[in-house]
This record gives sequence, C-alpha cells and structure tokens, in this order.
Amino acid sequence: MKKAVVLLSGGLDSAVLLYLAKSQGYLCSCLSFDYGQRHLKEIEGAKKVATLCGCQHTLVKLSLPWLDSALINKDLPLSAKIEDIGKGIPPTYIAARNLIFLSIGISYAESKGCSSLFIGANAVDFSGYPDCRDEFLSAFSDAVNLGTKAGVNGEPISIERPLIEKKKSDIIRLGTELNVPFELTWSCYLGGETPCGECESCLLRKKGFMEAGISDPL
Amino acid sequence: MKKAVVLLSGGLDSAVLLYLAKSQGYLCSCLSFDYGQRHLKEIEGAKKVATLCGCQHTLVKLSLPWLDSALINKDLPLSAKIEDIGKGIPPTYIAARNLIFLSIGISYAESKGCSSLFIGANAVDFSGYPDCRDEFLSAFSDAVNLGTKAGVNGEPISIERPLIEKKKSDIIRLGTELNVPFELTWSCYLGGETPCGECESCLLRKKGFMEAGISDPL
Repeated sequence: MKKAVVLLSGGLDSAVLLYLAKSQGYLCSCLSFDYGQRHLKEIEGAKKVATLCGCQHTLVKLSLPWLDSALINKDLPLSAKIEDIGKGIPPTYIAARNLIFLSIGISYAESKGCSSLFIGANAVDFSGYPDCRDEFLSAFSDAVNLGTKAGVNGEPISIERPLIEKKKSDIIRLGTELNVPFELTWSCYLGGETPCGECESCLLRKKGFMEAGISDPL
Repeated sequence: MKKAVVLLSGGLDSAVLLYLAKSQGYLCSCLSFDYGQRHLKEIEGAKKVATLCGCQHTLVKLSLPWLDSALINKDLPLSAKIEDIGKGIPPTYIAARNLIFLSIGISYAESKGCSSLFIGANAVDFSGYPDCRDEFLSAFSDAVNLGTKAGVNGEPISIERPLIEKKKSDIIRLGTELNVPFELTWSCYLGGETPCGECESCLLRKKGFMEAGISDPL
C-alpha cells in the first residue's frame, strides 16, 4: 500500500486533503504543528479528524521565539475585509512557515518510507501567502529531490498539492462528496467558543460555503 | 550594517564560516540545533565560539522522534574507513537535516531582517550527504525566493555557502588566517573526553589538518 504523510492543520482544506488522499488509496500519517499560535483549537480538530480516519497523528512542537505574526501575537488585530483578501501579504503571514512544515514533513516521509507528502495549499481564494503558491511548491520539490537520500536514490518524494487550483467553494463541494466532517474542523484564527466571523480565515470559509450552496455545520 | 544568520554546529567548518562572515562585515547571529544527537559537546563548542565572537546565539530544540541515524541511535556503529568516505550516503545521514536547518534559518533571517544565511556545507572532502551539495543549496535558494515575503518583495535572502568547493585542508588554512579557535570546535560524532579518531568526522578532520600541515589543537 502506498504511504503518504499529510500536513493536517485542523482547518477545512487539510481535512478535505486527508479524505482525498485516503480515497486515492494512500495509507496516511498526519503531522500537525504547534508553533505558538494563539490557540490550539485547530490542533484538537486535527487530532479528531485523524482519529476518525484511523490515521496516525503526530504533533510537532516548535519553539521559534523570533516569530511575530498576528497569528501568534495577541496584540495584533485579526479582523479583515473580504475585498482586501489576497491583495498583498497579510499580517498573519509567518516567516517560512510552510517551508519549515514541508521540510519536517519530508524528514518524516523519508524516514517512514512514504512516497508522497500532501499539502492543502491553495492559491485561488487564499490570503496571499507566497508559500501557498504552486511555483514555490514546485521549486521546493526540486530542492527535495536534490537534497534527500530518497531523491538521490531515484525514489523521490512527491509534493502533492491537489487543492492548489481549487476555489474554496470547490474544496467544500469535494469535501461534501468525500463525507468530510466539517463540524470537526476549525478555521477561525481566534480560539473562541464559536468562530469570530471577522478574521480572514472566517471570511474565506463563509464565502466558500455560500458559493457552494452548502451550510457550514459550525 | 548588513546582517546575517550563521548556522553554527560547533564543528570546524561552521566556526571558520562564522569568522569569514564576520571578516566580510556582517553582523552575525548564530543558530544551533539540538535534534537529539548523541551528545551536546558540539553545541557547547558552538556557544563558546559565538560568545567569543560577540554574536547572539540561539539554540533550537527539535523533537523529531522518527529520526534514525548513527548520529542519534547509540546502537549503530560509527567507525569508518577513510577510503570509503564519500562513496555513498553513510549511516550518519539524517533525513532532511539541512532542509530543516535552512528553513528554520530562513525564518529567523526573514524575521530579523538578515540579508544572508551562511551555511558551512562543503562537498569536496565530505561524507556524501546530498544536502551538502551546491545543486541542492541552489534549488533551495530558488524555493526561498518564491516562498517568502522577503523574496516576493524583491529583497531575497541569499544562501551563502563560501566553503562549498573547498577541501578540508583549505578550510583549515583559511581558519588559521582568520584566527579561528579550533580548540573550541568539536568534530567527533562521539562525545567522549577526547575525539575517538575513528568516526568519519574525525578521519576527515585529521586528514585536513595533515594536508594543511597544521597541528590540531584538539
């Protein structure tokens, strides 16, 4: 059975990603990261989704004290306007986040004999993060093939990004077909009882469900 | 003053690297990594060298329980033969090690406004690690420029690898010119009172000092 590592944040996209990878016949192991984000609600969601799928789940804790971002620093505002999203790199950007997550994911994949690493990045209805774009993932993949034993030995680890060109509404429709438990996912950048409805991530989620004509169980 | 982050392992190469970066006018901050290696003697060396240089030193602890390598697992043998070095990837290889170190280094560099990241990789008298080769570092650099805010904003972080084409003896000669305190560096993969003299790293260091006609203070 082909093996994959799936970067699972606990948000909507990576939950759909995991269900998609499973539907393609991969035996999936999931990785989540605690890098000091404001709340761990999304990680709890990731654990629940992985458990429901019968997948191994590993939480990697990173202590990177230099990071400053509205996702970490509670003094920075998070509210956004839907018309501004994607028009530049927002204050929620975290320096080299996907680069680090992917590198650690590759380490896991190579160590465990996984042929693929799945990442839920998408660059249509997105926040403008440069590390969610296909050209970055493509260049990263080239580096991986040159810098790992697996790559040198002719068994490169592929960086799978099946959501990259999908709109949020398409991802939600796909997740609905795959029976993704959206009620277990968490998108809001704040960790309140209910989603704040005002941060970028809430706005994109709301827009996606509306466009898909599906109601959000959250 | 131009700022750089220097990946400082505590070994000979990265100490020369730091002195070289300083001599080129960079204000250097140093990063070391504790990834579960057999001993922390090299990290103690890194701290001493950084302190002597008046540079900030940050130790990043990584808990990556899937790693298996002779550098971590004390049950795996470390002794090597000089004629076999570089003829394949050795059991001391660690999956995606430099990929992870570089990615975290880029995160630091971008957060602190450093224009360069220095890595002491060299691929002449080396152990055959794929992630020490220039083609890997070049591809990684491309990925960084596409995946970071700094890169997108036209202020890319350069990956400086000034030792990449140097023989070990050339690195030692350069370090001698720069007054690198070789007595504070530690190369041996074991953490004994004195270097074991039998591991790959000891063999390469011994050969380098011999060829340079310089005596190793260790």
